[in-house]
Formats: sequence, structure tokens, C-alpha cells
Amino acid sequence: MRPVFYVSDGTGITTETIGHSVLAQFQGVQYHAHRIPFVDSREKARQTADIIRQHQEQAGHRAVVFTSLVDAEAHELLAETGALMMDVLTPFASPLELELGVVRKPRVGGAHAMVDYKAYEDRINATHFSLTHDDGKDFDYNEADLILVGVSRSGKTPTCLYMAIHYGVKAANYPLTPDDLEGESLPKALLPHRSKLFGLTIDPGRLQQIRQERRPNSRYATLEQCRREVAAAEALFRTVNLPHLSTTHTSIEEIASKILAQLGIDKHLF
Amino acid sequence: MRPVFYVSDGTGITTETIGHSVLAQFQGVQYHAHRIPFVDSREKARQTADIIRQHQEQAGHRAVVFTSLVDAEAHELLAETGALMMDVLTPFASPLELELGVVRKPRVGGAHAMVDYKAYEDRINATHFSLTHDDGKDFDYNEADLILVGVSRSGKTPTCLYMAIHYGVKAANYPLTPDDLEGESLPKALLPHRSKLFGLTIDPGRLQQIRQERRPNSRYATLEQCRREVAAAEALFRTVNLPHLSTTHTSIEEIASKILAQLGIDKHLF
Repeated sequence: MRPVFYVSDGTGITTETIGHSVLAQFQGVQYHAHRIPFVDSREKARQTADIIRQHQEQAGHRAVVFTSLVDAEAHELLAETGALMMDVLTPFASPLELELGVVRKPRVGGAHAMVDYKAYEDRINATHFSLTHDDGKDFDYNEADLILVGVSRSGKTPTCLYMAIHYGVKAANYPLTPDDLEGESLPKALLPHRSKLFGLTIDPGRLQQIRQERRPNSRYATLEQCRREVAAAEALFRTVNLPHLSTTHTSIEEIASKILAQLGIDKHLF
Repeated sequence: MRPVFYVSDGTGITTETIGHSVLAQFQGVQYHAHRIPFVDSREKARQTADIIRQHQEQAGHRAVVFTSLVDAEAHELLAETGALMMDVLTPFASPLELELGVVRKPRVGGAHAMVDYKAYEDRINATHFSLTHDDGKDFDYNEADLILVGVSRSGKTPTCLYMAIHYGVKAANYPLTPDDLEGESLPKALLPHRSKLFGLTIDPGRLQQIRQERRPNSRYATLEQCRREVAAAEALFRTVNLPHLSTTHTSIEEIASKILAQLGIDKHLF
């Protein structure tokens, strides 16, 4: 098992994100990843180097170290372990310096340490909005940026919360009840908000597994019931021409990105 | 204003994360960023190139394009705009190919398109756990990985939800009520879970702003009340020797990373 480290003087989020994406291109390679954030002193760099050495010895493999350490000596302390060093920010700095005509000033703690009060407040407010407009708790959708529509446990809540926390999007969700599914038109509460709606659907077999975990052996969790609800929901999406996608084989990140792209909501990650 | 593009054949999350971190090193540079995800065909690459050209003309500046496009011809179509191209994955691929002795197989859609059912379920379950154990709704903390403790509106809920959605961590939170703050010991419900506790605090002036937005002109939102609660909460954290940090100048990402690091919870981002 190849030891992999994400070492950062900040949260390590950028470092882990890029390292994970790079490694995903090498299918079949077995590795064990360790995140070591907040390495913001030489002493901590020395401790980190010791940990890397231990894992190299145990694994009998050279480690791969993704790092965004700003301090050159701290970086050198890690390089002395003999690990393969992958500096995730430096390759982009020089061409940008040339292009922008500005010398970069890297800061220990990095991009995730900065707080923009306005952006922070947007995220907090959006999170509270999504919580109070979750699962049909509140049908006042005037402030909503978007409303996810789907049967119970089709993935609406985590998707809404992800979009709220990450993008500061006020994402509400509306659970389609068996009553809603009998009609051939959208539930009344949704009619004034046509342009904000997006449907989620899911494979009935997968839905059955999820419901079975929540309410074992209930009618709600039977395959029969799941099939009926999903078929009715999909028919409704088609009848009223609602954009929709299936959450079955899709990560939360991808569902969120697709919804925002399709509804034309241009919010940024930070 | 310099036009910046994050162009990806997948969600664009990796591309935007790295681009944002690189640009954060160039303080004072004004730019306008556009995310263009799911560029998974030549046709879409051509449309994207047109958009880049338009923005270059309008801005009178060469664009900076961060990209992780796998398809070489699609990449070339963008490069023909004359923009500064920053390929965020390629610089790391060759040294890794040499080290691992494996040729990489990049896939359109990238790292965020993959669904690992187990990891996905962990995140969904943790999100539901955090929702049902939010704000004192349920004091059964046996399954919790950690419990955040703090006064109302100190930032517990968004932090818990972030950790749940991202890391699959079962994060509960306990709101310190004025009653709890009169005593000099931990509330009873928390005593059996000493090692899972982490305190959050906040600047009283900032807390007052946040509460004022929620419940304008209430006693709850007076500076006096905020000062008293925060002082009592911080005294309690010191008395019982609870690790804690302030959310005032800290991003959700950084709070979450610090808590996980301090409690020794080694969960990964994906």
C-alpha cells in the first residue's frame, strides 16, 4: 500500500482535493492517504517528516506527498524524507506572475483561512433557510433560489444543504406525497415558482434499501411502494416538463453542479 | 477586470478549488471568475471558446483559464483563444506515472463523478444524524463522533452539517442555555461523552449582529445578553478544560479542519 500525504499549513482542503483528483486517474493503485493540516511551524514540519519516514519504512514504499507549504525550509524538511514531493500551487505561480505582472505573496494558512463576512453570512443564512424549508416544513418559497422536488428519501435534503453551505444558495425542498402523486399537475404550493423547480429521482431498488434502513419492514419501505412512487414522480416530471435527474449513480457534488448549471445560478464555491 | 475561467468536463470543483487558491496568492488583482462545468464534447468546447473570446474582448485583457479537460482537442480549442491556459492536473501526472510505474487513464467527468456507495451512505447518514441531533433535539449522543457545545448562534449548526456532508462525521450539537451557564459544570447530558466535546465561542459584538438579524430587538439580541452568555460559556470551557475555538474570524472549512485534527478524527474529504 502506497503511503500518500496531504500536508498543508492551512486546512489542507485544496491539497487534498487536487491530490485526490490526480490519484483518481491511476485506477487500481492501492494507497493509504493521511491528511496533516496546520503544519505552520518548522517544529511541526519536523514531526510531519518523522511520520512520513515511519510510514515509508512500514510500507516499504516511497511516500507521495502533496503539499502547499509556503515556508521553503519546512518544505525542505519534508523533501529530506526522500518522498516524491508534489507542490500543488507552485507550478501555476510563475506563469501567472508573468501574465499579471504582480509578484505573488503566499500566506501561511492559505485560501481557506480568509473570511469574507458577506460570503460567510450568505452561507449561514442559506443554511438556515434550507433547514427551515426542508421537507415541507415551510411552503413560503418567495426567497428561495431553487426548490428540489422528489419523493421521500430521493436525496433532496443533503443536496439542498450542500448547495447552501457551499454556494450560499437558498435551496428549499418539497417532498412529493402519495396524494401529490395522484394528480397530473404540480402541487399548488409549487405553481407560483415554476422556474425555480428541479426534480430528483432515484432507482426504486436503491430507494427501497434506503427506506428499509430508516423504517424497517414498513409499507413505506416495500419495493412495490417505491416503484409506484418513483414511476408517478417521473411521469409528473415529464408531464409538466420539469428538468430532473437521477441521484442513483451521482455524487452530491455532481448533482449540485448540474442543478446550478441547468437553472443558470452562477454562484461560486467560496 | 481580468476574466478568469474554470473549465472542466466534470463538476469543476477541483479546477475551481485550485484556481481560487492560486489566485488568492495575488492580492489586489481584480478578476471576474466564471465556472463552466460539464464541457464534455467538442461542441461544448467550441461554445466555451466563444464565451472566452467575448469576455477577452469586453475586458480588453487576456483571460486566465484553469482547466482539467481530458480531451486534447477540446483543450486545444480553448487554447486557440489565446488565453493563458493552466492545466491543473497534468503537471502532476508525469512524475506520478514514473513513480507508480502505471500509465494514468484520465476519465471525462473526473474524480467527482465517481460514487462509492459506502462513502455516499456514510455522508447521507451523517447528515441525517446531524439534523436529528441539532440544537438539543435529541440528547442520545451514543452514536455521535463529536458534539459541538456553545451558546445559541455561535456557529454550531453550519459546522456540524459541513462536517457531516463532507467527511461523513456524525456531528451533534448542544446549545448552552442560560440555565446551563449558571452552573460551573457540564450539563448532565454531556457528562458521559467528555472525549467527544468541542466548544465554540464567538465575539459578543458579532453574536449580537447575528441574533439581531434573527430576532430583531429581542432581549436575546442585546449586547448585554450576548456578553453575559459568551463570558459564562468561555468560563465553563476553561473550568472543565474543554478544547474550544472562536468562530468569529474563521471560515467553516477551517473550523471543521481544526476540530477534526484536535479530536483526532481521521476522515477524508471524499
